[in-house]
Amino acid sequence: MSSEDRKVTGISKISSGFALRDENNNIIDCELLKGRYSIFFYVNNLDSTKSKKLLHYFDNKIDVLMKNSIELFVVVKRAPEKISQFRKSEKVSLEIFSTEKQDELAWLGIDRSEVNDNIALFYDRWRVKRGYWKSIEDKTQVIEIIESAKASVKQDKLISNAISLRRARRSIRKDKVPRKDIERLIKAAHLAPSCFNKQPWRFVAVDDGETLEKLHNYISAGNSWMNNAPVLIVVYSSKELDCELSDNRDYYLFDTGLAVGMLLVQATKMGLIAHPVAGYKPKKFKEILELPDNSVLITVIAVGYQGESSLLNEKNQKEEITGRKRNPVESIFHWYK
Amino acid sequence: MSSEDRKVTGISKISSGFALRDENNNIIDCELLKGRYSIFFYVNNLDSTKSKKLLHYFDNKIDVLMKNSIELFVVVKRAPEKISQFRKSEKVSLEIFSTEKQDELAWLGIDRSEVNDNIALFYDRWRVKRGYWKSIEDKTQVIEIIESAKASVKQDKLISNAISLRRARRSIRKDKVPRKDIERLIKAAHLAPSCFNKQPWRFVAVDDGETLEKLHNYISAGNSWMNNAPVLIVVYSSKELDCELSDNRDYYLFDTGLAVGMLLVQATKMGLIAHPVAGYKPKKFKEILELPDNSVLITVIAVGYQGESSLLNEKNQKEEITGRKRNPVESIFHWYK
Repeated sequence: MSSEDRKVTGISKISSGFALRDENNNIIDCELLKGRYSIFFYVNNLDSTKSKKLLHYFDNKIDVLMKNSIELFVVVKRAPEKISQFRKSEKVSLEIFSTEKQDELAWLGIDRSEVNDNIALFYDRWRVKRGYWKSIEDKTQVIEIIESAKASVKQDKLISNAISLRRARRSIRKDKVPRKDIERLIKAAHLAPSCFNKQPWRFVAVDDGETLEKLHNYISAGNSWMNNAPVLIVVYSSKELDCELSDNRDYYLFDTGLAVGMLLVQATKMGLIAHPVAGYKPKKFKEILELPDNSVLITVIAVGYQGESSLLNEKNQKEEITGRKRNPVESIFHWYK
Repeated sequence: MSSEDRKVTGISKISSGFALRDENNNIIDCELLKGRYSIFFYVNNLDSTKSKKLLHYFDNKIDVLMKNSIELFVVVKRAPEKISQFRKSEKVSLEIFSTEKQDELAWLGIDRSEVNDNIALFYDRWRVKRGYWKSIEDKTQVIEIIESAKASVKQDKLISNAISLRRARRSIRKDKVPRKDIERLIKAAHLAPSCFNKQPWRFVAVDDGETLEKLHNYISAGNSWMNNAPVLIVVYSSKELDCELSDNRDYYLFDTGLAVGMLLVQATKMGLIAHPVAGYKPKKFKEILELPDNSVLITVIAVGYQGESSLLNEKNQKEEITGRKRNPVESIFHWYK
């Protein structure tokens, strides 16, 4: 982010209590850091030979940082005009920022005592602290900081394991899943967005043997593997619980899908199989579970820990090890131009 | 997992090439590890004083491991009956497993040369290698292994950042997003499950200024913040692309919701705002983008990096900093019994 960028945005008008200043005494507002990877490097004693060397190491890495969309903020407790003098005499090309009141520390989640040391912090685009280094002394540490930040940026671009490791697994073992874990899945689902925040999704979970047995009678024969699942989460909604907009846009099932999407991701993260199916008798399920007659019972999710394949019949065992089948991405996506 | 558990499952009938054996010469099948956290500890020289000490350290931690649902497999290259003798004479209570052909190494993703050393590995419930320790010498390292595994188990239970950090943010800055990043979002979406694997979701992305400008004319006034978004992803589907089942269960919008759920999670992981809206003129959008007349254009997702709040009008600025609003979880979820 060049100083030109900072001018263009006119951001300095926003008062945020974030009080870094650049050499020309312009305020650097925390708003500017939103959505940007950033390394903060606090230099405790700028005039020491050690500090000067560290600055030069970072200076040499500016290109690497830029290439990885990482902003670097070298911060010292010194007036802007003195920083300017220092940079000229030391031939440092990287920008150095001034903090006098150190108001930014709270915003960064650092304690005042921590900056009596050379420390570095790495924040991601959501301002989550992803790295923290103390007592920075030498080149090796500077390289470590930069490599670690680069690795985080790279890692963030990969498809989430919680998405890619999910499969429609059937080999669920009977072991109980704690209720609080199931409730966490629901909490994750409930964080989904919805049309006008209508939150049309409804869930009822069943883990008692008696009710499960009743439900098993109304699961399709092909889904008999579900009988092992210690928990079934039944998902339903109704048209009137959500926006009904022009051109056939009823949002209730779409938004419920968003919520179930979150639930599946969270389950995978927690090491749980969560396998939504459509093969059951919805009217019977609604009757047994005393759900509104007019609701649409859109899916039943079998939840449990993965078990050995021998839990399955031969057909299901084969399915369990087949690769994921998807139509070519070109058949579902294109750039308009 | 007790040896009783292993008998009950009758798993040893499955041939997997995984050739650990317990003291009683029972085969431990890799199938048994599915869905379980596990630490593998390879002991290179069982008779050394060092190794014996390490075993006792682990022995003292068995309760902690069990409490955290972590299985421990101490593995040595020695015949089962000799292991039995060793355990008796050394008064080691933890189980030790025998590997002779070391067939399990490939399954674990370890090279044969690596086990000429005391190494430990930690796998999660999906058999993802989450920790690897070499040259294990002392108690400190054993504690580190166990603490690290415990931390992973705990971390896995937390609600995913990629779910909880998502908000309906509007302050998108104009900076371009590389096309390959948008394509990664689509790939994540395309990993969603669907009824009979119908994959009914369709996406068209727009990032050229001319088309974006045309579309802006048909976005509701309240959504004018979308004009800054460098990319719009338009999501559509049709009833006949997916299952149409009894009791009003049309799956196309639900499954499309699942896919968009994955997309939102992936975007958040990548540090991108992805904000789906309903406020646009669907017929005009379909006309401009040449989409099938009978399709339902269920949402438009504004995508871009977060920028400063000053990009927004006053009303939107206020909304940007309000807390997340959700109805109490009791209103959307209950246990049947």
